[in-house]
Amino acid sequence: MTFNATELANLGIRNLSPYQAGKPIEEVERELGIKNIVKLASNENPLGLSPRVKEALTATLAGLARYPDANGFYLKAKIAEKFGVRANQITLGNGSNDVLELLARTFVSDEHEVIYSQHAFVVYPLVTQALGAKGIAVPAKDYGHDLDAMLAAITPRTRMIFIANPNNPTGTFLTSEQLAAFIAKVPENVLVVLDEAYYEYVPESQRAPSIDWVQRYPNLVVSRTFSKAYGLAGLRAGFMVTHPDLADLMNRVRQPFNMNSLSLRAAEVALDDIAYLNESVAVNDAGMAQLVAFCEKHELPYIPSYGNFLTIEVGSDAAGLYQKLLQHGVIVRPVAGYELPRHLRVSIGLKHENQAFIDAMEAIL
Amino acid sequence: MTFNATELANLGIRNLSPYQAGKPIEEVERELGIKNIVKLASNENPLGLSPRVKEALTATLAGLARYPDANGFYLKAKIAEKFGVRANQITLGNGSNDVLELLARTFVSDEHEVIYSQHAFVVYPLVTQALGAKGIAVPAKDYGHDLDAMLAAITPRTRMIFIANPNNPTGTFLTSEQLAAFIAKVPENVLVVLDEAYYEYVPESQRAPSIDWVQRYPNLVVSRTFSKAYGLAGLRAGFMVTHPDLADLMNRVRQPFNMNSLSLRAAEVALDDIAYLNESVAVNDAGMAQLVAFCEKHELPYIPSYGNFLTIEVGSDAAGLYQKLLQHGVIVRPVAGYELPRHLRVSIGLKHENQAFIDAMEAIL
Repeated sequence: MTFNATELANLGIRNLSPYQAGKPIEEVERELGIKNIVKLASNENPLGLSPRVKEALTATLAGLARYPDANGFYLKAKIAEKFGVRANQITLGNGSNDVLELLARTFVSDEHEVIYSQHAFVVYPLVTQALGAKGIAVPAKDYGHDLDAMLAAITPRTRMIFIANPNNPTGTFLTSEQLAAFIAKVPENVLVVLDEAYYEYVPESQRAPSIDWVQRYPNLVVSRTFSKAYGLAGLRAGFMVTHPDLADLMNRVRQPFNMNSLSLRAAEVALDDIAYLNESVAVNDAGMAQLVAFCEKHELPYIPSYGNFLTIEVGSDAAGLYQKLLQHGVIVRPVAGYELPRHLRVSIGLKHENQAFIDAMEAIL
Repeated sequence: MTFNATELANLGIRNLSPYQAGKPIEEVERELGIKNIVKLASNENPLGLSPRVKEALTATLAGLARYPDANGFYLKAKIAEKFGVRANQITLGNGSNDVLELLARTFVSDEHEVIYSQHAFVVYPLVTQALGAKGIAVPAKDYGHDLDAMLAAITPRTRMIFIANPNNPTGTFLTSEQLAAFIAKVPENVLVVLDEAYYEYVPESQRAPSIDWVQRYPNLVVSRTFSKAYGLAGLRAGFMVTHPDLADLMNRVRQPFNMNSLSLRAAEVALDDIAYLNESVAVNDAGMAQLVAFCEKHELPYIPSYGNFLTIEVGSDAAGLYQKLLQHGVIVRPVAGYELPRHLRVSIGLKHENQAFIDAMEAIL
C-alpha cells in the first residue's frame, strides 16, 4: 500500500486551502532585498506596543517557565468589571480566531449549515469547511451584510450565523437598530456570532450595546479582540461573551493553556490603558482622513470604512499594483480571495506610513 | 422554547469534562491565604526563564502590535537545522497540546477509534471524545504502555495511536528497541503519535532516534515541547515532525497565528541555549535522586521515572495528603483522574523546593 495522507484526512479538510496571512515585513525583506518597509497589510495597530503594557510584560518575563493560569482568573475579572458581565460568561482565546473556532467546533458538525456574508472574514468559511459543515455565503449588499437575505437563508439545518461588524475586509457597518431587529428574528437554536474585532474604531455614539444584549438573547455571542485597537496582535488575545451554558460547553473543548501568560497579563493591563486606546483611535481617524483625501483627489472609489483600514477599488490589475507597491517597499493586502479582485485593502498606519503608500501610488499611477 | 445549550453542542462534547490544570500558585494564595508557596504540580522547569531567552524577548517586545509570522519561518529553519529535517515536515503549535489536537482534528472523526494507554496523558482521551471518536484505553503494564496489547487493539476503524514516552503522569519509558518493533508492525493507515514532551530528560544513550524514523515510517508523528526542559511553559511552544503531506493537511486547519511572536522567538533562541538545557537536566537528575532517596528512606513505593517528576504511592488517602500538603504551602498533583487514586505526582523542583516537599511530608506522616 502506498501512503496517502489525503485519504486519511477528514472530508472537509481534503479541499481546504489554508488562511493566507499578510506578508510579514521580514519575508519581503528576504525576498526582495529591500529595507525600510511599510506594512499596511494586516490591520495592525501602528502605534506599537503600549509603554504601559511593555512595562507590565517586562515584569512578567521571569515567570515564563510556569504554565499560564488555565482559567485566566485576573483577565476574566477585569473583563467582567469593564463590560458588566459575569466571569462565567467569558471565554478567553489565543486571539479571537481561537474563540470563533472553538465555538464552531463545540456546536457545529457535518449535519449543519453556517451562514455568513460574501466578502466576510475568511476564517468563517475555513472553520465551517474544516468541520464538514455546509457554508452558505449570502451575497453582499453594497459590500456589506444583507441581513434580510441572511434571515431568509436560515433553514432547519442552520446552526450558526457569523456577522462581522465592522466587516473585514470591507469596513462596512451595521447600525445598532439593524442588528437588534435581526437578532430578535433569529430562532433561539441558531447561534448569532457578532464578531466585533474592530468595535473600538466605531464612534462611541454609533456602537451597539451588543454585550448587554447577551443577557436578553441566549443565542447571541459577541467576540472581541486585543489585536487591533489594543495593539496586542503579536501576543494573541481575544475573548467571547456568551450565555454561561455556552461558555461551559466551550470550556470543555478549549485547550487549557490556550492563552499564554504574557497575553493574559497584557490584555488585563491594556483594558485599563485608556490613553493608549484613545490615541489608537485618534491616529486611526487622522489616517483614515488622509487616505480618503488621497482617494478623493485621484477619484479612486473606496468602500467607506468603520475599521482601521480602507479598501480601495484600484481596477482590474490589483494584483499587479500590489506587486509594484511591494517593490516600493509598501505591503498592502490583495483581497481577490474575498471576491474583490479589483480592490486592495490598505491598513491605516502612522502619518508617514500612509504617506509612503500615497507616494508609492502616485509614483506608480 | 427554552434555551438549551447542551442540546446545541456536538455529541462528543456533551459529556466531556474539561482538563484539570495544576493549581496555580496565585490561586492557592487567594484561597488559603498563605505565601511562599512551592509548586511541584505541573512538571515545569524550576530554573525559571533562561537569561538568554529573556534578553531576546525584551528586545522583541516592541514589535508585539504586529501579527506573528504565520509560517514561523525562523523557528522552522532552526528546528530543521537542529533535528535534520526539512521545514515542510514541521508543524508549530501553541504548546504541543495544540499540535496533538490539530493532528486529531485533521485525521480523526466520529467513525474512528483512537488507542492510548491507561494512565496516559489526559489530553488524548479528551481530544478523542471531543471529536466523537471512540477512545480505546489499553490497560497498562507496570504502569506503562503495554505495546503488545496496544497492537492487538488495532481494528479497521483505528486511525491513531498515542504513545507518550516518557509517559506522564507515570514517568515510565519504552526503549528504542521496543518502539522500533512496535512501529514496524502498525499498518500505514494508522498514525502513531509519539509524544516526547519529556525527551530531553532521558539519558542521551537511551533516547530513541525517533525523528529520524519519520523518514522511514510516513505514519509516524513525533511531537516535542518547549514547556519542560526548555523552560517556556508560559509562552506556549511545541512542534511536530511528520511526513510533509501530513504537515500540509494540518496546516490547512491550523489557526494562522497559533504561535505568538514571543514564543516563536523564545523557542528559536532556546534551541541554541545548550547551557540552560544542560543545567535543566542536571538539576532534574539531582532533584530526582533527592526525592528517590526520601521515598527509599520512608519505604514509600514510587514509579521509577524518566521525566521531571516522580509519582509516589502514598496510600488510600492521597486526596487528604494533597490537601495537607497545600496547607503546608506545597502544591503537588493528585492523579486519581488517571486511575491512580493512591498516588501523588511530584514535579522535580530546585533543591530547596524538593526539601520543602520532603519536610512537609515528614511533618504530616
